[in-house]
Amino acid sequence: MEIRLAKSYGFCFGVKRAIKIAEESPNSVTFGPLIHNKNEIDRLKEKYNVELVEEIDEIQENSRVVIRTHGIPKEKLALLKEKNVEVIDATCPFVTKPQEIVSKMSEEGYSIVIFGDINHPEIKGVMSYATDPIVVLSVEELEGKPLKEKVATVAQTTRKFEEYQKIVNYLMEHKKEVRVFNTICNATFENQDAARELSREADIMIIIGGKNSSNTKQLFKICKENCPDSYLVENAKELEKEWFEGKKVCGITAGASTPNWIIEEVIENIKKIQV
Amino acid sequence: MEIRLAKSYGFCFGVKRAIKIAEESPNSVTFGPLIHNKNEIDRLKEKYNVELVEEIDEIQENSRVVIRTHGIPKEKLALLKEKNVEVIDATCPFVTKPQEIVSKMSEEGYSIVIFGDINHPEIKGVMSYATDPIVVLSVEELEGKPLKEKVATVAQTTRKFEEYQKIVNYLMEHKKEVRVFNTICNATFENQDAARELSREADIMIIIGGKNSSNTKQLFKICKENCPDSYLVENAKELEKEWFEGKKVCGITAGASTPNWIIEEVIENIKKIQV
Repeated sequence: MEIRLAKSYGFCFGVKRAIKIAEESPNSVTFGPLIHNKNEIDRLKEKYNVELVEEIDEIQENSRVVIRTHGIPKEKLALLKEKNVEVIDATCPFVTKPQEIVSKMSEEGYSIVIFGDINHPEIKGVMSYATDPIVVLSVEELEGKPLKEKVATVAQTTRKFEEYQKIVNYLMEHKKEVRVFNTICNATFENQDAARELSREADIMIIIGGKNSSNTKQLFKICKENCPDSYLVENAKELEKEWFEGKKVCGITAGASTPNWIIEEVIENIKKIQV
Repeated sequence: MEIRLAKSYGFCFGVKRAIKIAEESPNSVTFGPLIHNKNEIDRLKEKYNVELVEEIDEIQENSRVVIRTHGIPKEKLALLKEKNVEVIDATCPFVTKPQEIVSKMSEEGYSIVIFGDINHPEIKGVMSYATDPIVVLSVEELEGKPLKEKVATVAQTTRKFEEYQKIVNYLMEHKKEVRVFNTICNATFENQDAARELSREADIMIIIGGKNSSNTKQLFKICKENCPDSYLVENAKELEKEWFEGKKVCGITAGASTPNWIIEEVIENIKKIQV
C-alpha cells in the first residue's frame, strides 16, 4: 500500500504561533484548551508545565494566563484583567480580526450577522464584541431574524466559503447595505483543497485531528464525500488494522491543530500495519 | 383571444416623478431625454413646451434645465451650474443614491465596482462621482482588474439581481472587505416578476416600451424565455396582425418608462386586430 500525504495539512499559522507563545511561557496556565488537540496540550503540560484550566475561579493570583488561539469572550478577559494575573494573548490574529470588526461595526450602527457555530469558543469570543449579534449556520436560521437595513457580516475562520456566500446572497437580497468581511482563513482552504484532491485518488483516507476540532471535522466530511473509507483519528492508537485490508493508496491529512509528531507517529504505525 | 395585463407594469416611481416635474416646468429644456420613451417626450414637447436638447452648447442663458431621470455626469452638472440657467433636478432618487454612495466610498478609500453598462446614461452619471471606478457587466470583465482589498459595489438600478450576486460572490472570494449596496430598484423586480409569471401563461406577449430602454429590453428577454412569440413594440403602430393568428392568450407588459396612454392605445389596437 502506498502512503500519500496531502499537499497541505496540519498546523496553521495561528496554532504554530500559539504553541510558540506557550513554550515561551513555561509554568503558566491556559484558560481553556490552547488549541483543539489534547495530545499537544499534554505535551505542553509535561514539557513546559503549561497547565489547562477551565474556570476563572481556578486561576490563582500572580499566575500567567495564556489566552487560547480561539480567543475568549470580552467579559472573561475583563474578569481576568481584574485578577492580579499576567495575561499573555495567544489569540490567533485571524480571530482577533473579526472580534475587532464586529465591535467597530456595532459602534457604527450595523446589525451583525456571524456565520458560525454558536457553541464554538471562537464564535463565543467574537459574539461578545458585538451588540446583539445574530449567529447562524444557514440561511434558514437567518430567515425572519430582526436586522437593520445596514448589516455587517463575518464568518468563523474555519467555515466553508460556499456556505458563507449563501448567507451573503440572502442578506444582499433583503438589505440595502451588506458589509461583507471575508474572515475565513486561507490555511483552512488550503488544507481542504489538498484533502479533496487526495481523497479522489485514495481508497482509504486517514484524517488526523481532534474530534472536537471544527476544521478537522470539515476535512473528514470533505474526504468522506470522495472516499467512503475515511477515518478520523486523534492518534496512532486509534488505527485499526482491518481498515487497511486490500487498500492500495492511503491518503493522509491532518487538522490545523494537529502537531507534526502525532502525524509522524500515525504514519509509522500505518507502515507497521502493512507488514 | 383573451388579453391579460401583467400584475405590475409600466411607469416606475422615478419616471412618474420626473414627468410631474417636467409638467410643472413648462417652457423648459431637458438635458438629454427625460425618460427613455420618445412618445412621452413628444407629448411633453407638444403640451408643455418641454424641449429636448442633447448638448450643453445648445442650452441658452436664463433657460430652465430639467435633469433627466438617469442623472448626468458631475462635470456636466458643474458646466450647467456655471451657465446662467435654472437647474431642476428630476434625477430619480434611486439613481442619486448610488451617485452619493460611490462618492462617499471613494472618499473613504474603497475601490469602486459598478455593475452596469458603461454606455448607459445612468452609469455615466454614477461613474462621474467615483474615483477610478471599474464598470463591468460580468465576472469575466472583472477578472484581473486592479482593486484594493476594500471594495464597495453598486449596481445599475435596472440590472438583474442574480447577475449582481455573481459579481459580489467573485469579489468576496478575492477581497477582504466587500461593501455591497443593493441599488437595484424594486420596481424593476416587480415588473419583471409579473412579466415572468404572465409569459408562462400567454402564447403571445407584447412588451411595450422604448427600444433603447434597458429595463424594457430586460422584460422582453424574460418573456422570450417563456413565450417564444414575444414582441417589443414602441407603440400601437408597430403591431402586426399576423402575430396574433391562432393565439388564445395575449399577455401585455410595459417598461418602466412607458406611459399609460401608449399602453391603452396598444390594447385598443390589439382588440381591433381580433375583429
